[in-house]
Amino acid sequence: MLEAPFRTSFRVTWAETDAAQVVHYSNYFRFFERAEEEFYAHLGFTFADTARRGLWFPRVEAFCQYKKPARFNDLLEVEVTVEELKEKSTKYGFRVFNKDTGDLLANGYVVVVAADRQTGKATAIPQEIVDKLKPFAK
Amino acid sequence: MLEAPFRTSFRVTWAETDAAQVVHYSNYFRFFERAEEEFYAHLGFTFADTARRGLWFPRVEAFCQYKKPARFNDLLEVEVTVEELKEKSTKYGFRVFNKDTGDLLANGYVVVVAADRQTGKATAIPQEIVDKLKPFAK
Amino acid sequence: MLEAPFRTSFRVTWAETDAAQVVHYSNYFRFFERAEEEFYAHLGFTFADTARRGLWFPRVEAFCQYKKPARFNDLLEVEVTVEELKEKSTKYGFRVFNKDTGDLLANGYVVVVAADRQTGKATAIPQEIVDKLKPFAK
Amino acid sequence: MLEAPFRTSFRVTWAETDAAQVVHYSNYFRFFERAEEEFYAHLGFTFADTARRGLWFPRVEAFCQYKKPARFNDLLEVEVTVEELKEKSTKYGFRVFNKDTGDLLANGYVVVVAADRQTGKATAIPQEIVDKLKPFAK
Repeated sequence: MLEAPFRTSFRVTWAETDAAQVVHYSNYFRFFERAEEEFYAHLGFTFADTARRGLWFPRVEAFCQYKKPARFNDLLEVEVTVEELKEKSTKYGFRVFNKDTGDLLANGYVVVVAADRQTGKATAIPQEIVDKLKPFAK
Repeated sequence: MLEAPFRTSFRVTWAETDAAQVVHYSNYFRFFERAEEEFYAHLGFTFADTARRGLWFPRVEAFCQYKKPARFNDLLEVEVTVEELKEKSTKYGFRVFNKDTGDLLANGYVVVVAADRQTGKATAIPQEIVDKLKPFAK
Repeated sequence: MLEAPFRTSFRVTWAETDAAQVVHYSNYFRFFERAEEEFYAHLGFTFADTARRGLWFPRVEAFCQYKKPARFNDLLEVEVTVEELKEKSTKYGFRVFNKDTGDLLANGYVVVVAADRQTGKATAIPQEIVDKLKPFAK
Repeated sequence: MLEAPFRTSFRVTWAETDAAQVVHYSNYFRFFERAEEEFYAHLGFTFADTARRGLWFPRVEAFCQYKKPARFNDLLEVEVTVEELKEKSTKYGFRVFNKDTGDLLANGYVVVVAADRQTGKATAIPQEIVDKLKPFAK
């Protein structure tokens, strides 16, 4: 059975806005990453652990569609879904909502690869991470 | 005749790197925008002018593929191409190279819409901007 | 009687680190501002309100001393104190702790001025803001 | 004889502005660092070199006074001076000007320590760096 998507909330800070008085488009990719980090924490991943294994998780692709602007102090809700779970990579989907109005502000995805820190080469995602992501995978 | 793509160069600053000792993935979207800004300057656009018209240029879509990492102090070259030129929107393509090695580090695009600052609605790109972009459009 | 200082907590995100694998020094000023924003929320200030009055709050001075590094995923606690409360300006003090170890990581301050959005000139801080800050002022 | 201060110029990008339509106060510390990096390049320091020695240069103190706002597309000039040159630390002074109007926008300083990457302990600044900074030291 598919787990409900992970959701997390935070407010737009002043530093994230730009001179159009909306969140700068590049910051949505930081929102995606922050939601991904909180998803990992929710799953109980310890980063000390992956560092000890000599693993890191570079992004190889990133995409975002912008629907409506987010403004200073808006309460955002970011939903994380596991779109694809492959041997060496994961595709996470994201939807950013204004939590008060329910409006969809942006949606997108990132493709993350498991890589060996030394060689930089793609490597298999550790089994216990796969096991924890699987219930969320479509 | 198609104009040669616009190219601009800058160095990776320390603040743009992350704990993997490479440029953070969100910063490529700032590189894209900076290259776009320098392209406009090259074309002779005055921003004071578009502000006076009550226009701004929100992004509605953004994409990037990451090929090789960029590191602190690397000299980057960013190439800007006009992929699509429509009545109310433009799609810019970007390629980021390591200028010393010639390696392609990343490529991507953004779709930019001309919008009325008051209403937020999409509007026609001013004719003199269209005239200047046309020689670069594929 | 002096109110206890306001405290708020958040985790270090990957995007806030740099190639030394610690939080970039400029980001402490974003932590200060974020803590200040949460302090205002705690006091019940509505930003829509100050915007309607045509007020904004530029910083005229900022300072930080760095004691120990913060790393990715560290849980920070930021303490906000009202160091000085003048007619047109406030000096906020900040201390950033590692919440798990209790270590002081950084301390600093910002001086914030109330300013008229149109003229840019310093103006009196609205009385109801003063009233709410007073119990925290040293 | 005292060398003339190092000066470098760059334009304010859109991503550096905030909803007050001016450069966000934290970004001045990025401007300081970028000017410092260009100063090092001007002096012929090779970062590969200091990395090989296992050195890095954390900031232990940072200060900025804000005089006038900088806006999108403004051409800035940043001046770097060597305020103090000690055995293990350097204090750099910075002044940020609007290059077109000549207005002083901000001034500040950072104190940078030479540190051993492994132990984190302060260590002597390498002699050839001292030799190159000395002609700029007050």
